[in-house]
Amino acid sequence: MNIRFNNARLLMPGEGHSFKIVEGELWTKDDRIAFSGTKEEAKKALSENEMLVWDEVIDCKRNLLMPGFKDAHTHTAMTFLRSLADDMPLSDWLYKQVFPREDKLTPDDIYWLDFLGIMEYLTSGITSNFDMYFFPPMNAKASVDAGFRTVQTSGFNNFGSTIEDLEENYNIVNSMDSDLVSFIVGYHAEYTTSMERMEGVARLAEKFKSPVFLHNAETKSEVDECIERWGKTPTELMDSLGMYEYGGGGYHCVWMKDKDYEIMKKRNLYAVTNPCSNVKLASGICDVKRFLDEKIPLAIGTDGAASNNALDFFREMYLTATLAKVKHMDASVVDASEVLYSAVSEGAHCMNLNDCDTIEAGKKADIIMIDMHKPNMQPENNIVKNLVYAGSKDNVKMTMVNGQILYRDGQFNLMYSPEEIYAKANEIINRMRNC
Amino acid sequence: MNIRFNNARLLMPGEGHSFKIVEGELWTKDDRIAFSGTKEEAKKALSENEMLVWDEVIDCKRNLLMPGFKDAHTHTAMTFLRSLADDMPLSDWLYKQVFPREDKLTPDDIYWLDFLGIMEYLTSGITSNFDMYFFPPMNAKASVDAGFRTVQTSGFNNFGSTIEDLEENYNIVNSMDSDLVSFIVGYHAEYTTSMERMEGVARLAEKFKSPVFLHNAETKSEVDECIERWGKTPTELMDSLGMYEYGGGGYHCVWMKDKDYEIMKKRNLYAVTNPCSNVKLASGICDVKRFLDEKIPLAIGTDGAASNNALDFFREMYLTATLAKVKHMDASVVDASEVLYSAVSEGAHCMNLNDCDTIEAGKKADIIMIDMHKPNMQPENNIVKNLVYAGSKDNVKMTMVNGQILYRDGQFNLMYSPEEIYAKANEIINRMRNC
Repeated sequence: MNIRFNNARLLMPGEGHSFKIVEGELWTKDDRIAFSGTKEEAKKALSENEMLVWDEVIDCKRNLLMPGFKDAHTHTAMTFLRSLADDMPLSDWLYKQVFPREDKLTPDDIYWLDFLGIMEYLTSGITSNFDMYFFPPMNAKASVDAGFRTVQTSGFNNFGSTIEDLEENYNIVNSMDSDLVSFIVGYHAEYTTSMERMEGVARLAEKFKSPVFLHNAETKSEVDECIERWGKTPTELMDSLGMYEYGGGGYHCVWMKDKDYEIMKKRNLYAVTNPCSNVKLASGICDVKRFLDEKIPLAIGTDGAASNNALDFFREMYLTATLAKVKHMDASVVDASEVLYSAVSEGAHCMNLNDCDTIEAGKKADIIMIDMHKPNMQPENNIVKNLVYAGSKDNVKMTMVNGQILYRDGQFNLMYSPEEIYAKANEIINRMRNC
Repeated sequence: MNIRFNNARLLMPGEGHSFKIVEGELWTKDDRIAFSGTKEEAKKALSENEMLVWDEVIDCKRNLLMPGFKDAHTHTAMTFLRSLADDMPLSDWLYKQVFPREDKLTPDDIYWLDFLGIMEYLTSGITSNFDMYFFPPMNAKASVDAGFRTVQTSGFNNFGSTIEDLEENYNIVNSMDSDLVSFIVGYHAEYTTSMERMEGVARLAEKFKSPVFLHNAETKSEVDECIERWGKTPTELMDSLGMYEYGGGGYHCVWMKDKDYEIMKKRNLYAVTNPCSNVKLASGICDVKRFLDEKIPLAIGTDGAASNNALDFFREMYLTATLAKVKHMDASVVDASEVLYSAVSEGAHCMNLNDCDTIEAGKKADIIMIDMHKPNMQPENNIVKNLVYAGSKDNVKMTMVNGQILYRDGQFNLMYSPEEIYAKANEIINRMRNC
């Protein structure tokens, strides 16, 4: 599809991690952005390209076009556990409610539950996700069928799959005939994985020259127990195993020590914060300010819908900024612009989606339209701050992935109807409700 | 308007602070709920009331009808300052950015800025607000013109108005020919108000047998300085001045001491928590668990859009529950059901709107419809937890106040167009941008 968006405002990169608003146009050609710039630039480009043919011209009515949000840590198919088991201690939730039901998941379940999650991403303006869950090839199939962009890593641990499975999944997904899906080496976490297996992951990272991602320092007890076991924090341990030769990063990063920040800086690792999950599961508050101060790249994730319980990036952005403020008891720390940069650009870099970080010409057409004609976007004192501090899913007027409009004015453009997907999701959880 | 909502699910009161979901119907007659119950009960009621004539029959398609949210602390017209001055220390924000511009507000400004706020309330399913701001009669006029329900209190302090003005506003608003508006005695806060003036408020409360509301213990320095000045916390001081003879309560209530909880319990005072404002302005985290444990009634408010920066009740509910969990480092504290009860019912009691707390027959028709056909409401493991932990403004399909549908499928039913209201709001802030 070649689409001309006119009468738009564009969220373009500014100095450093800032943004500027440009009144103008954006054109897509197939899966890429062919042009984005001012009205004058558009006029000039039009006069030089007499052969341009549009499938559709969309009058944006001065609504905002911007890069989609990058959900840099999630377990999409966990949608089936949403609101099944809340308001209980973390260990009961995980060991009594989550694990026994996950054991019963089939690849077919994953497919349908991923579709439900992808629908929810689209309503929130999320255009790609960094997923860790079971049956990666099936997860990739769901994304390709939906037209959604997914980078996967492995949830490899002591239970179930082997290091050979991890390698096989890496190869299957990375050789699929679609640039919507890719795979980066990773595993669940130190506390669920034996030394032998972690060493296997390190060897695989070396073999593929891949970054490595894992849950890291989500809870205090996780870090305390790792130090007790190995005399090192998870970050120190992974570094000593040579796991970060090609970069990577940690999900959550709540309970980090001074040495961990040093390692992250030295290795250029990404910190992926999951603020909603961390407060709801009472894990703690990530020190986002310190990551930013130390110039450690920061991305944002929703975690799975079982934890938090929604895939809502506006809520995550709000909490990323405001929890830092209350943690430091200083309203001036962590500027909205930094948070928006993490949400749309740094998340892309973290997932190795360097063509999805801005809406400049040549980049992938992963674009959302924000409705500026809703009351929460008015008056227009500062559009970036309005997005981070006042925005909601209600403002997402369109979500385009890889040049295809998958969601527009509340309607989905997917191969299954919403009711079909909802019926499947309810059927799956009903099957295992009493286990 | 007499409306028959059929094929609905209804959020009805359960035991204590819980809810139950009833499949059935709801009928409105003018400003009240004429019937709400199961399909069978509806059938029986229909056969007994042959004279029923509907202006409209709405097929709810199994969407959820529930009481609207009660925004129990806000400064509606502060919409003009949204996103104008964020990410700065609290004192700079208040003294350099907010106060100088508030000085320039006219009654006409208040009218338009209130309309903008009311639009935003409607998109979030808020059906009434407890407002504190300038020019209460104009604020009341905006609510009446919009068809919105507003309870006001005074922002009385050392600057500007007199105790006679407060009394006059009380009388004007309470004698207006509309049950949409009312006025309860209150003032800004101890730290902005002289002893003489506080004593005047206490006398007025006695004269009108009115509860008294004020900002209380929002910041640590506020409480410390009050103790330094008077040897008492704000709550102790108000109680010693006889201000709580007829009840009332405090907004924020973040920095409460043991004695304060005792007084609140003894006087049956309401604690109104404002979690988004408190984290964004780095004021602290309210101990919601303790209020609930002590059976002190808890309501929820957004505060003004200058603080937080949106009037989004889903965000407030999420933070009310989850900040309590992270504060106590225990995921099991504060159940979603308690938070929903605060949001829809206890907020009504706090504002003396005892006819607006449920959607039972005979109550006021302040009703919202939640779209259950959005992905974040699926699967339907637990509707109450879905609302509190996964809900968003995107789920608000309809907002009815006093029997009138004011918002439906994204469209407003107001006497001015959205663009007219937005233009006024931008004009007002542009006029005073550089002050």
